[in-house]
Amino acid sequence: MKILVLGAAGMIGRKLIDRLLRDGKLRGEIITEIHAFDVVEGQFESTGSIAVSVEAGDITDAQTVTKLVANKPDVIFHFAAIVSGEAEADFGKGYRINLHGTQNLFDAIVDQDGYVPRVVYASSIAVFGAPFPSSIDDEFHLTPLTSYGTQKAIGELLLADYTRKGLMDGIGLRFPTIVVRPGKPNAAASGFFSNIIREPLSGQPAVLPVDKDVMHWMASPRSAVGFAIHAAEIDGDAVGPRRNLTLPGLAITVGEMIQALENVAGKKTANFIEEKRDETIVGIVNNWPRRFIANRAIALGFVSETNFEDIIQAHVDDELSGVLPG
Amino acid sequence: MKILVLGAAGMIGRKLIDRLLRDGKLRGEIITEIHAFDVVEGQFESTGSIAVSVEAGDITDAQTVTKLVANKPDVIFHFAAIVSGEAEADFGKGYRINLHGTQNLFDAIVDQDGYVPRVVYASSIAVFGAPFPSSIDDEFHLTPLTSYGTQKAIGELLLADYTRKGLMDGIGLRFPTIVVRPGKPNAAASGFFSNIIREPLSGQPAVLPVDKDVMHWMASPRSAVGFAIHAAEIDGDAVGPRRNLTLPGLAITVGEMIQALENVAGKKTANFIEEKRDETIVGIVNNWPRRFIANRAIALGFVSETNFEDIIQAHVDDELSGVLPG
Repeated sequence: MKILVLGAAGMIGRKLIDRLLRDGKLRGEIITEIHAFDVVEGQFESTGSIAVSVEAGDITDAQTVTKLVANKPDVIFHFAAIVSGEAEADFGKGYRINLHGTQNLFDAIVDQDGYVPRVVYASSIAVFGAPFPSSIDDEFHLTPLTSYGTQKAIGELLLADYTRKGLMDGIGLRFPTIVVRPGKPNAAASGFFSNIIREPLSGQPAVLPVDKDVMHWMASPRSAVGFAIHAAEIDGDAVGPRRNLTLPGLAITVGEMIQALENVAGKKTANFIEEKRDETIVGIVNNWPRRFIANRAIALGFVSETNFEDIIQAHVDDELSGVLPG
Repeated sequence: MKILVLGAAGMIGRKLIDRLLRDGKLRGEIITEIHAFDVVEGQFESTGSIAVSVEAGDITDAQTVTKLVANKPDVIFHFAAIVSGEAEADFGKGYRINLHGTQNLFDAIVDQDGYVPRVVYASSIAVFGAPFPSSIDDEFHLTPLTSYGTQKAIGELLLADYTRKGLMDGIGLRFPTIVVRPGKPNAAASGFFSNIIREPLSGQPAVLPVDKDVMHWMASPRSAVGFAIHAAEIDGDAVGPRRNLTLPGLAITVGEMIQALENVAGKKTANFIEEKRDETIVGIVNNWPRRFIANRAIALGFVSETNFEDIIQAHVDDELSGVLPG
């Protein structure tokens, strides 16, 4: 079992590779090689019988991508992308990397005769744009209101068509917003969903820029990795021709998140959150989906957290060595 | 008012240019130039004050497309495409022309600073694939089951995003199946919808390869031209960010079509239709949409026929000089 991970240095990519190294197997087969590709070199250690190779490069270069698939990896995780904010700020760069980079990958696979790898593609709930129904079902249309969401939606369409033609075996995953993201606070509009949990748990203040009744759709980094693994292992015939799946998640308000933090870590921890309304972020978040009905993915066996305490606990276990503050 | 038509030699392109020449105006402005572009040169005569220039070329060539928009046409009709059957048979060619050709056009527009033309883009109900609800509303998801439908859906997404960013002013039109197509019978799976009307009206036999209860979604070539003109003239603000519209049409069964033919032209004419089931065509047509609820387009003023007798009459008027057989 040879595995290629594009976007290996990103948060999900790193956690996915860590899990693959721990598991040692995928689809019931012993993993022999993992090739970790990103725009920067990630840090991974070969363990036991698994050779990990690391490469930095640019997926907009067709030759680079052709070389990546030359040894015919059995499973390709394609998580490489310019994030939403940057794709919006730099129109050309977003299209080059998120669209043309993805086309390069799919076309490089097609160019190898008889090579039909499982491709797990990271899409996003950003393929949906307001106005929404109160719950978005599996048949709601693609209505992105960002260039990032547009590029992800186009990748979904390509993946479904190339798979239908038997040219690859793709599964697209519309990830929920991933919370709690480890690391430092960042400037992403969605950053506060993680900040208000991660920072108080480390005894640091965090700003809440929106009202407490804002609802959003979330899953933990641990679930995100679980989604990717499950997508690699799932029976393609059971998925059928609609290859892109809205993943399960938890629809929860910011107020409920804070209550869960208090439940897990006490009132003192929750008090590190300062409410400071930011109209720009309020406006952006108002256009985001709140809740999905992910019936198809659930029927296919994808699993996520069903309460926010579990999402907090996953962060405490995976990032804080299980230690709660105070 | 300068107009560029891509796909000018196709059935809709030709009829559109004929109508523009007759009208002499678009968006309330006098038309001064029409540039008619296609892979082959169409035949058009400059009339009165309107200069018609004809060019044959390839939209996969970025330089060709850059030159096409260099004189900043006010309205661009983009109807150039490889049709469904050919795009399915030749995967690479379909993507090159229908996807990359369209990207070339949109990017050539972006490359001209401050140039924001109205772009009327021919999409198709092929962006939707089975299974369907009995009526498909404006919020049904993009689920193409052909490469052609995939390429059209991607064009829709690009058009909406480029328009949202203020880089062009696009309207995408999901045309119904156009009936009665003039000319000779062709091998397209949808050809019989036209054949069974056109051929009997000329005293020729026609084969019906499907059951009479097959229902499909249709409009006349005259309506198709009307849709394009209306899309050029409509207020973009009224359309909003969802720039791609399912157009109105007539949901009708083959049996009802034949009854309408009998109503218009008599039983003797209808008797030219021979039922001869073709399982391949039956299978293809079973995956096609039957009926839409095109509320958005109707509210925006798009108009189509409401009975099939009018569709037949449009053909008799426009192609047979108003003369019925017998």
